[in-house]
Amino acid sequence: MPDTGIGMLAPLLGSDRVARTVDAVAWLTALIDVEVALSHAAAAHGLVDAAAVAHVERAAAALRADLDPAVLAGEAVEGGNPVIPLARRLRAAAGPGAPAVHPGATSQDVMDTALVLLVRTAADVIGDDLAACADAAAALAAAHRDTPAIARTLGQQALPTTFGLVAAGWCAGLDRARVQLGSVVAALPVQFGGSAGTLAASYPHGPAVADALADRLGLPRQDVPWHTERTRIGELAAALGVAAGACAKVATDVVLLSATEVGEVAEAAPGDSSSMPHKRNPIAAITARASARRAPGLVATLLAASDHEHQRAAGPWHAEWPALTDLLLATGGAAARLRVSLVGLGVHPGAMARNLALTSPDPAPSHAGDLVDRVLARRP
Amino acid sequence: MPDTGIGMLAPLLGSDRVARTVDAVAWLTALIDVEVALSHAAAAHGLVDAAAVAHVERAAAALRADLDPAVLAGEAVEGGNPVIPLARRLRAAAGPGAPAVHPGATSQDVMDTALVLLVRTAADVIGDDLAACADAAAALAAAHRDTPAIARTLGQQALPTTFGLVAAGWCAGLDRARVQLGSVVAALPVQFGGSAGTLAASYPHGPAVADALADRLGLPRQDVPWHTERTRIGELAAALGVAAGACAKVATDVVLLSATEVGEVAEAAPGDSSSMPHKRNPIAAITARASARRAPGLVATLLAASDHEHQRAAGPWHAEWPALTDLLLATGGAAARLRVSLVGLGVHPGAMARNLALTSPDPAPSHAGDLVDRVLARRP
Amino acid sequence: MPDTGIGMLAPLLGSDRVARTVDAVAWLTALIDVEVALSHAAAAHGLVDAAAVAHVERAAAALRADLDPAVLAGEAVEGGNPVIPLARRLRAAAGPGAPAVHPGATSQDVMDTALVLLVRTAADVIGDDLAACADAAAALAAAHRDTPAIARTLGQQALPTTFGLVAAGWCAGLDRARVQLGSVVAALPVQFGGSAGTLAASYPHGPAVADALADRLGLPRQDVPWHTERTRIGELAAALGVAAGACAKVATDVVLLSATEVGEVAEAAPGDSSSMPHKRNPIAAITARASARRAPGLVATLLAASDHEHQRAAGPWHAEWPALTDLLLATGGAAARLRVSLVGLGVHPGAMARNLALTSPDPAPSHAGDLVDRVLARRP
Amino acid sequence: MPDTGIGMLAPLLGSDRVARTVDAVAWLTALIDVEVALSHAAAAHGLVDAAAVAHVERAAAALRADLDPAVLAGEAVEGGNPVIPLARRLRAAAGPGAPAVHPGATSQDVMDTALVLLVRTAADVIGDDLAACADAAAALAAAHRDTPAIARTLGQQALPTTFGLVAAGWCAGLDRARVQLGSVVAALPVQFGGSAGTLAASYPHGPAVADALADRLGLPRQDVPWHTERTRIGELAAALGVAAGACAKVATDVVLLSATEVGEVAEAAPGDSSSMPHKRNPIAAITARASARRAPGLVATLLAASDHEHQRAAGPWHAEWPALTDLLLATGGAAARLRVSLVGLGVHPGAMARNLALTSPDPAPSHAGDLVDRVLARRP
Repeated sequence: MPDTGIGMLAPLLGSDRVARTVDAVAWLTALIDVEVALSHAAAAHGLVDAAAVAHVERAAAALRADLDPAVLAGEAVEGGNPVIPLARRLRAAAGPGAPAVHPGATSQDVMDTALVLLVRTAADVIGDDLAACADAAAALAAAHRDTPAIARTLGQQALPTTFGLVAAGWCAGLDRARVQLGSVVAALPVQFGGSAGTLAASYPHGPAVADALADRLGLPRQDVPWHTERTRIGELAAALGVAAGACAKVATDVVLLSATEVGEVAEAAPGDSSSMPHKRNPIAAITARASARRAPGLVATLLAASDHEHQRAAGPWHAEWPALTDLLLATGGAAARLRVSLVGLGVHPGAMARNLALTSPDPAPSHAGDLVDRVLARRP
Repeated sequence: MPDTGIGMLAPLLGSDRVARTVDAVAWLTALIDVEVALSHAAAAHGLVDAAAVAHVERAAAALRADLDPAVLAGEAVEGGNPVIPLARRLRAAAGPGAPAVHPGATSQDVMDTALVLLVRTAADVIGDDLAACADAAAALAAAHRDTPAIARTLGQQALPTTFGLVAAGWCAGLDRARVQLGSVVAALPVQFGGSAGTLAASYPHGPAVADALADRLGLPRQDVPWHTERTRIGELAAALGVAAGACAKVATDVVLLSATEVGEVAEAAPGDSSSMPHKRNPIAAITARASARRAPGLVATLLAASDHEHQRAAGPWHAEWPALTDLLLATGGAAARLRVSLVGLGVHPGAMARNLALTSPDPAPSHAGDLVDRVLARRP
Repeated sequence: MPDTGIGMLAPLLGSDRVARTVDAVAWLTALIDVEVALSHAAAAHGLVDAAAVAHVERAAAALRADLDPAVLAGEAVEGGNPVIPLARRLRAAAGPGAPAVHPGATSQDVMDTALVLLVRTAADVIGDDLAACADAAAALAAAHRDTPAIARTLGQQALPTTFGLVAAGWCAGLDRARVQLGSVVAALPVQFGGSAGTLAASYPHGPAVADALADRLGLPRQDVPWHTERTRIGELAAALGVAAGACAKVATDVVLLSATEVGEVAEAAPGDSSSMPHKRNPIAAITARASARRAPGLVATLLAASDHEHQRAAGPWHAEWPALTDLLLATGGAAARLRVSLVGLGVHPGAMARNLALTSPDPAPSHAGDLVDRVLARRP
Repeated sequence: MPDTGIGMLAPLLGSDRVARTVDAVAWLTALIDVEVALSHAAAAHGLVDAAAVAHVERAAAALRADLDPAVLAGEAVEGGNPVIPLARRLRAAAGPGAPAVHPGATSQDVMDTALVLLVRTAADVIGDDLAACADAAAALAAAHRDTPAIARTLGQQALPTTFGLVAAGWCAGLDRARVQLGSVVAALPVQFGGSAGTLAASYPHGPAVADALADRLGLPRQDVPWHTERTRIGELAAALGVAAGACAKVATDVVLLSATEVGEVAEAAPGDSSSMPHKRNPIAAITARASARRAPGLVATLLAASDHEHQRAAGPWHAEWPALTDLLLATGGAAARLRVSLVGLGVHPGAMARNLALTSPDPAPSHAGDLVDRVLARRP
C-alpha cells in the first residue's frame, strides 16, 4: 500500500491514531461489512435467496483474510472506485451465492455507507481526544478558579482576570465542538438508492432493504437516497472544521502563554534543543496548531464539492474522499496533540502575578470565579 | 460611503437585497440599537441612573438622524472599530446622560451583538429566498412526479427516473439547508463581557444586565461571554456555506439540463444574445452558481479565524467582519438568483422522452414517484 | 449604488483607497474606455467606418457624464453582465455611429479587458503601499543593523540576532512580493476573441484589431484569446495572495513585539482605550493582519474557478469578479495598514537588551549585520 | 509506516507516482542527503575536520540501510521534526566523526532544504505528466485544426469553431502552467541560517558554507536565510494550484463533451458499468477533476501559513509539510489522470457535425485554424 506522503509526519502531527481508522485496511473492512450487511438485508426482504447469503459471508471472510488492499486499490483505477472490483471478486468467490452479492445497489451506496462507518470510528477517536482536552481544561479551570492573571486584549495587557476563567473558556469551546461533532456524526444515515437513485432494482422492497441495512449496521435510516444531496457532508465537514478551530484557539493561547517573556504555563514535556538548553518549546501545542491549520481549506474543498451534478457527480463525489479523510486526520491531529499539551500543563501563578503587576498594581479581587462556576456547572 | 467594489456587480449576483441589511446604515442602526438597549438594561439593574437613559435615547435619536456613516467609518480607523467613536459621540450628545452610555461594556460586546442583529435580518432574507426555492422545487416535483426522464451518472445517461424525483432531491437539500441555517442563527446569543470578559465593571449585576440586554433585543441569553470562543461564528459560517452548496447543486443541474443538446428545462426569462437569437442562457442559474462559488473560501476564512488569542484577538476578530458580510452576500445571492431560476422554470417532457429514448428504448415504469411522495410528505 | 456591505469597515481595514479604483464608477469608466478604444482599433483596420467613431466618442462622453452606474448595474441583471446594456445604450446614443459600436466583440472581451485596466490601477496603489512598507522596513534595518535583540524560535527565546536583521527579513519578503505582483500585472494582456473565441466576426482583421486595441489601451498584446484559459487570473490571484502573506508576516511580528511583556516596538499612533490608559494597541498591524486573512480564501475561490467550461463559463467566469475585487481590497488593505504601522514605528533598544538578558547573559557580538547589508545591497 | 489515509484512493486519483517521491523513504533519504552534503560543505571551508566527513558518510550509509522511517517518525514527535532524532542518530553512528554532523545548522535548514529536494523530484513527475497532456492536446489540435464543431457559451450552443481550436486552448493553458511551475521550482534555493538565522555558529564561513551546500545538492544559492520569509512557498503553492486548474478546465470539457447527448469525444478506455453496458464513463477525466479540486484549499492553507512569526514559526512552519505534500499529490494526480484521458482520446467529427447542425445550419468556414497555428507555433 503506498505511503501517501505524510507518513513521516503523521505521528508528530498527531494524526496516527485517526489514520488507523481510515487506512486501506479500514476501507476494505468497511466496504466488505457493507456488502455483507446488504446481502442479509436483501435476503430478509426476499430480494435474494437467503441460503445464498452464507456463501457471501464465506466469500467475504476469505477476502478479508487474503485480499491485499493495494491490489484492490490498483483495480479501482479502471472504474474510479474500489467497489466495482470488490463486488466482482465477491461474486467470483461466492460461487452459487453470486446473485446475492451487491443486490439492488450501486457503487456509491457502498462507498457512502462505508464512509459513514469510517467516519463514526474516526469521530470516536476524535471525540475521545476532544473530551480529554475539555476535561483537562475544566480541571485547570477548577484548580485556578481564583488564580489572578492579566487579561490581554489586542495583544496588550488589559485588566485582571483569573487563569481559571481563561481555561474555562477553553473548556466551553471544546465541549461545544465535541457535542456538535458527535451530533452530526450520529445523524449520518445509510445510503441506498441503486443505479439511478430510484430504488428500481429493489422494487418494491427498496425502502425496507434500506432500513434493514441501516439497522444491521447500527446506522440511522435514510429518508430517501442522498447521493447528490450532500448537505450532510457539508455539515460534517463544518463540525470538523469548528472542532479544529476550537483546538487552534487553545493551542495558540498555550504557545503565547509559554513565551519566554510571559512564562505563565509550560507543557509537561516540552521539546528541547541540544544547543539551547534554556528552551522549553511547547511542541504539542505547536503541532496542534499546525494540524488545525489544515482544516479550513479542507472544509472549503468539501463545501465546494456540494455541486454534485445530475444523479452522480463526475468529480465532486470522488473529491470528497481524500478531502474528508485528510480533514479527519487534521482535526484528529489537532485534538490529539492538544490533549498532550493540556494534560499535565504546568501553571505558574508566580509568573502570572509578576506579569499582572506590570500594569495592574492593585488588582481588585476578580469576579471571574462566578463565570468559571457557570461554565463548569453547565458542561454537557 | 465608499462603494466597496462590487456595487456594479451586486444586482446581477443577486446580492442587493441582502446588501441592504448589512450596509453602513444598517451597521450604524444596529450599533445604536445595542447601545440604547444596554443603557436600559443597565438601568434596570441599578448600574446606571434610570433618569439618564432618556438622555441617551435622545442622543441616539439625534445620531440616527444626523450621523453620516461615512464619518463614523473614518473615525473608526484610529481604534480599529466604530464603537469607540460612536460611544464618544453618544456621550457627548447625551450631556448629563453620559454616564449611562456604554455601561460596563467593551467595544466587542457592542460589535458582536450588533453583528448578531444584522445576521438575523440578513438570514431572514436568505431564508425567504431559500424557502421560495424549495417551494418551487416542491411544485416541480409534484407536477412532474411521474414525468419520465433519464438519470445521468458520471456525466452519462444511466437508467430512467422521473423529473419529479430530480426536483424532489433539490427540494430536500434546500429545505435541510434552510432549517439548519435558521436554527444556527436563532441560537446566536447576546454578547456582554466587559473589558476583560469578566463582567468586572458591572459586578455583581453583570449576568443580569446581560440577560436584560438579550431580552430587550429579542436575542437568546448568553451562558458566559464568548469573545474568544468563536465556535458559534464557525457554525454560522458553515450553515451559510452549506446553504450556498445546496443552491449550487440545483443551479448546476439547471445549467446542464438547459444545454442546447439536452433542452429539458428552460428558465422563464433566459438571457438572450443580440447576435445569436437561438441562445437561451439560463442566466439566473449561472449567476446563482457564481455567487455560491464565493462561499467556500469565505467559510475557510472564518474557520481559520477561530484562533482568537487571549481575551480579544489582534486580527482574527476584525477579519470576521468582512468575511461574514461577504458570506451573507454570497449565500443570499445564490438563493436569490436560484429563486428567479426555479420560479417559472419551463419543463419539457418531450425533450426528456427524446433523450431517454437514446439509451432506454423501453423504459420500465419508474418507481421514483414513491420517493417523491416521501420527500414532499416529510418537508419541514 | 448599493453599498455592498463593508462600507462601514473599509477604512479601518485599509481598503478605501483601492476601493475607489474598482468601484462602480471605475467599472463604468473602464468599460466605456474599452468600447471606445475598440471602435478606434476596428476603424484603423477597416472593420468599421472611421467617420462613425466620432459618433461613438460623443456617445461615450455623454454616457460618462450622465449614466448612473446603479442604473447600468440594474440593467446588467438580465443578461448577467453590464456590457450588454452598455453596448445597447452606446448604439442608441451613437445614432449613425451605431455600427461602429462593439465591433466584432463579445461581452467577455470588454469585461476581461476592463478588468485588466482596473487591476492595473488597483495594483499601482497596492504596489505603492508595498514599496512604502519595504522602504520603511529597510530604513529600520539600516538604523538597527547592530541593535542586539533576541531571536525567538517556536515561541521561545533562542539566540541573539539584531533588530536590523529582523527588519531586513521583512524588507526582503515585501520586496519580493511587490516585484512579483508588478510582473504578473504588467503581463496581463488585452482580450479579444468575439462570440466564439474565433475572431470570426472580425475576419481576417481580428488579430490586427486585437493588437491595435492593446496598443491604444497600453496593454500587452494577446497571443490568442484566453476566455477560458485562465492561468493568468490564477497567477494574479496568487501574486496578490503572496503579497498579503508577506504583509501578514510583518504585521504578526509587530503585534507580538508590541506585547506589553515584550515592548520592543510601538506604533507611532497606537489605538488607546479610554478605560485602560496604559494600552498601546498596535491597531494598524492588527487591521493589516485582518485584511491579509481575507486573501487565502479568495485565492482559493479564484483557483477553483479555473474550470471555465467550453468557450465561456456558466458561473466560474462571473465568480471571478467579486472574488478578484475583494482580493484587491484585501491585499490593498493589508499593505495600506502595514504602511501606517511601519512608518514611524518606535523601536526600543532598551527593551530589547532587557529581554535579551533573560536567556543570553553574555551575548557574543552578532554577525547578523552582514546579512542586513546583503539584503539592503540587493534590493530590487 | 502508517498508511495515512488515502492509500486505497491514491491510485484512482492518480497520485501514486508522485506519492513515491514524497513518501517516508523519500523524506529519510533527502534528510540524510542534506546532512551529508552539509558535512562536506562545512569541511570545505574548514568549519569541521575534513577527515571526519568519511565517518559521517559511513554513518549515513548505515542509516540509509537500516533505519526504519517509521521509527524515526515516532522519534520525531518529541521535538516536532525528524531532523532532531536523525542528527542524534548520525552523531551516535559517526563515532569520531560526530563533530562533523549537522555543523552550524538548525533543524529547519535541513527540513527546508530536503523539502526543496523532494519538491524538485515530485515536480519532475508532474511536469512530465503536464507535458504529456499538452502534447496530446497539441496533437488533437493539429489533427482537428479544421474539424467543425460548435462553440458553447454559458452552456448554450453559440457559433461554429473547430475542435482543433478547443484543443489548442487546452494546450496553451497546460503549457503555461508547466513552464511556470518549472520556473518556480527551479528557483527554490538552499536554506542555511543556523539556530537564529544569523549564521552565527558558522561565522565567518556561513555564506560560503551555504553556497557550497547549494552547489553540492545542485540547488540555487540563497541570498540570505529565508526561514520565515515564505514568499517562495506561496509562489510554489500558487504554481501548483494554477497547474491543477489548467487540468481541471480540460477535464471538465472532456466530461461535458463525452456526455451521452453530446458524444463528441470518448476516452480510449472509459469505465464501464456491469449493469449499464451503454455507459462510457470518462473516468480518467472525472478523477482528474476530483484531484484538481483538492488544490485550491491546499493553496489557501499554504498562503495562510505565510505568517511565520519571529525567527521560526510555532505552527505555520509545521503546517506547510502536510499541505505541500498533499498539494503535490493533488496536482500530480490531476495531471496523471488527465494524461490518461487525453492520450488516445477518441474524437467524433460526425457527432460534432450533428450537434453543429442543431443551431448553425449553414456554418461559414471557420477561421479558427489560424489561431490553432498560432498556438502550435508558439509552444514553449
